[in-house]
Amino acid sequence: MADVRTALADVVGVEHVLVGDEVPPEYGRDESLGVPAERPGMVVRPADTGQVAEVLRVAAAHGLPVTARGAGTGLSGAAVPRPGGLVLSFERMNRILEIDTGGQVAVVQPGVTLAELDEATAAQGLVYPIFPGEGGASIGGTVATNAGGMHAVKEGVTRHHVLGLEAVLATGEVIRTGGRYVKTSTGYDLTQLIVGSEGTLALVTEATLRLRPRLPHRAGALAPFPDTEAVTAAVPRLTGGGLDPLVLEYVDVLAMAAITENAGLDLGVPQDVRDAAGAYLLVILENRSGERLDEDVQALGDELAALGAADVYVLAGDALRKLVTAREQAFWAARNAGANAIVDAVVPRAALARFFAAVPVVAGRHGALIGGCGHAGDGNVHLSVFQPDADAMERVMDELLATAVELGGTISGEHGIGREKTRHFRALEDPAKVELMRRIKTSFDPDGILNPGVLFG
Amino acid sequence: MADVRTALADVVGVEHVLVGDEVPPEYGRDESLGVPAERPGMVVRPADTGQVAEVLRVAAAHGLPVTARGAGTGLSGAAVPRPGGLVLSFERMNRILEIDTGGQVAVVQPGVTLAELDEATAAQGLVYPIFPGEGGASIGGTVATNAGGMHAVKEGVTRHHVLGLEAVLATGEVIRTGGRYVKTSTGYDLTQLIVGSEGTLALVTEATLRLRPRLPHRAGALAPFPDTEAVTAAVPRLTGGGLDPLVLEYVDVLAMAAITENAGLDLGVPQDVRDAAGAYLLVILENRSGERLDEDVQALGDELAALGAADVYVLAGDALRKLVTAREQAFWAARNAGANAIVDAVVPRAALARFFAAVPVVAGRHGALIGGCGHAGDGNVHLSVFQPDADAMERVMDELLATAVELGGTISGEHGIGREKTRHFRALEDPAKVELMRRIKTSFDPDGILNPGVLFG
Ligand SMILES: Cc1cc2nc3c(=O)[nH]c(=O)nc-3n(C[C@H](O)[C@H](O)[C@H](O)COP(=O)(O)OP(=O)(O)OC[C@H]3O[C@@H](n4cnc5c(N)ncnc54)[C@H](O)[C@@H]3O)c2cc1C
Ligand SMILES: Cc1cc2nc3c(=O)[nH]c(=O)nc-3n(C[C@H](O)[C@H](O)[C@H](O)COP(=O)(O)OP(=O)(O)OC[C@H]3O[C@@H](n4cnc5c(N)ncnc54)[C@H](O)[C@@H]3O)c2cc1C
Repeated sequence: MADVRTALADVVGVEHVLVGDEVPPEYGRDESLGVPAERPGMVVRPADTGQVAEVLRVAAAHGLPVTARGAGTGLSGAAVPRPGGLVLSFERMNRILEIDTGGQVAVVQPGVTLAELDEATAAQGLVYPIFPGEGGASIGGTVATNAGGMHAVKEGVTRHHVLGLEAVLATGEVIRTGGRYVKTSTGYDLTQLIVGSEGTLALVTEATLRLRPRLPHRAGALAPFPDTEAVTAAVPRLTGGGLDPLVLEYVDVLAMAAITENAGLDLGVPQDVRDAAGAYLLVILENRSGERLDEDVQALGDELAALGAADVYVLAGDALRKLVTAREQAFWAARNAGANAIVDAVVPRAALARFFAAVPVVAGRHGALIGGCGHAGDGNVHLSVFQPDADAMERVMDELLATAVELGGTISGEHGIGREKTRHFRALEDPAKVELMRRIKTSFDPDGILNPGVLFG
Repeated sequence: MADVRTALADVVGVEHVLVGDEVPPEYGRDESLGVPAERPGMVVRPADTGQVAEVLRVAAAHGLPVTARGAGTGLSGAAVPRPGGLVLSFERMNRILEIDTGGQVAVVQPGVTLAELDEATAAQGLVYPIFPGEGGASIGGTVATNAGGMHAVKEGVTRHHVLGLEAVLATGEVIRTGGRYVKTSTGYDLTQLIVGSEGTLALVTEATLRLRPRLPHRAGALAPFPDTEAVTAAVPRLTGGGLDPLVLEYVDVLAMAAITENAGLDLGVPQDVRDAAGAYLLVILENRSGERLDEDVQALGDELAALGAADVYVLAGDALRKLVTAREQAFWAARNAGANAIVDAVVPRAALARFFAAVPVVAGRHGALIGGCGHAGDGNVHLSVFQPDADAMERVMDELLATAVELGGTISGEHGIGREKTRHFRALEDPAKVELMRRIKTSFDPDGILNPGVLFG
């Protein structure tokens, strides 16, 4: 270990290598509810790409496992290191290198946070439209998990906005993929392969991101529905109707109570309406013209009413921002309430109703309390599961994730497999695909030093 | 060969194996101008996925190279088989399996053409927004080349609309990737890896495609500009301005003359305006409201005038359709005029002016005539190069493609590398990336039977 320390200190400077007890405990964890913290052997904080490459060479020479770390806000334990392994933190590589307004592109280092990028793009009338509800997440981490969030129904997820990457392979080789252009048919799309690979294929040292015009006008509607069936039936009508919602979230009554209480929010929904509600839809529209937005919100209200909403509360300005923030805090609300796990399943939109119908059955069978909210427009369901008994909890997860797969869905929409869902990944994914992915992993990382244990388990 | 024939006839039926002289010559070529036809040893026409898998097993057992064939409309020689090799034609797998209007998804076999899918989706008020200008192209071929086309500036390219695939590996293993959902963070994105891989990684036997609402109103403007500088300066203003153009094409004067003449089209642009024009922009907008469209076209006209257009011709209905069709025929116009090669380079939008400035210099140096049109909104430039001398032609290509790469671009935006650009791919692409792609290829196709010679040369 002393050798390694010296070698790494030569690369990044002695003050940027932390060993043993010097390592603050936060480097051993992320925000996953299910993956316990570990103690890494070391934390290294490189300042540039060349240093990242050198660090990887040293790690490879010593067979040391390397876990990249962005902001540690991940929800699947993907940034939890191997005990005794090396954490490579991107915290010092945190510069926005360029906002190219003509090309509508940002070039950033991986340690830049979404909130920082949002501020910088706002100043130029542009936006990087990835809002996973945690502005502290880093670009590197969001690229590695293919983060989604509330705007995905309109804007797509991280992979749709990553135009190019600079990345370091486990061998220390530095490659550049893609570029400042939106299309290419020049060989295999390495950019898209690295996006979502959870630090197991290559480390991202720079990202070229597609920006969109920031539309100035935004308003929304909150609509209580009598039951989840009505909500799920409304979803495809709203995504297919041409209003092109920016946000299309469902919130069940349990989650609505939790997030409004957690945020101290009064939405002005009368008690009798709340009592009668089975679930809520939150729909947000945006437009470059205030007048058109008003028309569209009107049309949205009519549409929601026609789809069976018990009422429609139009929200704009501060009231809307507060509700969005409260919704973004849903994870903290669930955690504070004692949730034991978060589900991030995806099903085809048309199968949402069947998935929701299965939830209370699974909950009842294993004595769990389950509530949630999620990106209904994407068929992406987040459930908070309350069941302190670990075995019963496992069965709940097994059954919910298997149900999602049976319905033609997948076990993670945006949080990733990490360490948390490796067992489900192996159990529910086609072995031929898992083997193919392992071979791909080997083609990037022959010695398996990048985030071992993540994804494949 | 007799063995192989028997084995294949057992799989697909004797009438669907063509050998030697029975093979019609079109199976040996595509529409590339630079890649000569070859004579395959056999053509096999499987009827379903199981048969595709069996055919690949037979081919693997006999070490026979396999070239998948869609419609043979490709422009890079990617469907040109190995001499004596096997062509696996998807012409019989041509069914639209489902148009799921609620889920806004189409599930299709690879032999379905874009025109067929367009007709089927139109009936449902939906659209698969990939229009590469050749409606006869197949879904399998467009997936394998990551086809783009004129709507890409708004809608993105093929990869942005492929949600999932069924694919057969070279080993005969059948995998399903993705599904009827727009987001997933569940392992490496095999879908995106197969898209654009030109038949070298796996054969696509089914595709799940994302559909969009088909907007009913469309209109556009044709604007002559004094020179290409003014055109290139206008492009980022139009993509960033919030009008969200569906089409943003530039057409130089040479190409405009060729396509209008080829189509017998009179655009009503007076001779003096034509004489003064240096290049044209064609901008098309669409909207779900006719009224909003009218407003936007008005705003577009003002914007174009402000950006220096000499005049603005508003086009709608038939006149617009005719111009679009004429533009789609640009390739045939160029071929009929005797073009020797088509360039499909991409540069960052901000570098378009520098690329255009280089073109006449290269043309002059090697005595070539070069004109073109292209997807300006994407920085994707199509040039027709007239230079019958093969050596001079090669130098023109070398210099133009090297210029694109120097400017931060890439050598193919949408046609692919195929057999035509392998030399440039190897010369201009980072060797570390090429080696990585080779290793990825091996992880799908250990014996290298899928389209050998394509991409890597
Ligand atoms: C309150 C809350 C709400 C959330 N809501 C959402 C949501 O709606 N949608 C959503 O998608 N996510 C959501 N998340 C999850 C989280 O924001 C994302 O997972 C985020 O993408 C992780 O970013 P990070 O920088 O914290 O990454 P980390 O947690 O540090 O790391 C995540 C993964 O990325 C890898 N990694 C980090 N940097 C790099 C790099 N430079 N190169 C290669 N690999 C790297 C790590 O090794 C690890 O595998 C939420 C989280 C919280 C706390
Ligand atoms: C007039 C004209 C205009 C064009 N304009 C454009 C344009 O604007 N934009 C654009 O992008 N393209 C354009 N093209 C090119 C062309 O339409 C595309 O390359 C198309 O994607 C090829 O489809 P295809 O079915 O003809 O494929 P083919 O030519 O048959 O094959 C192309 C490649 O796909 C592979 N392939 C075919 N089927 C499968 C399968 N099922 N599984 C795996 N691999 C398979 C082949 O092996 C080959 O590598 C144009 C072509 C023409 C003739």
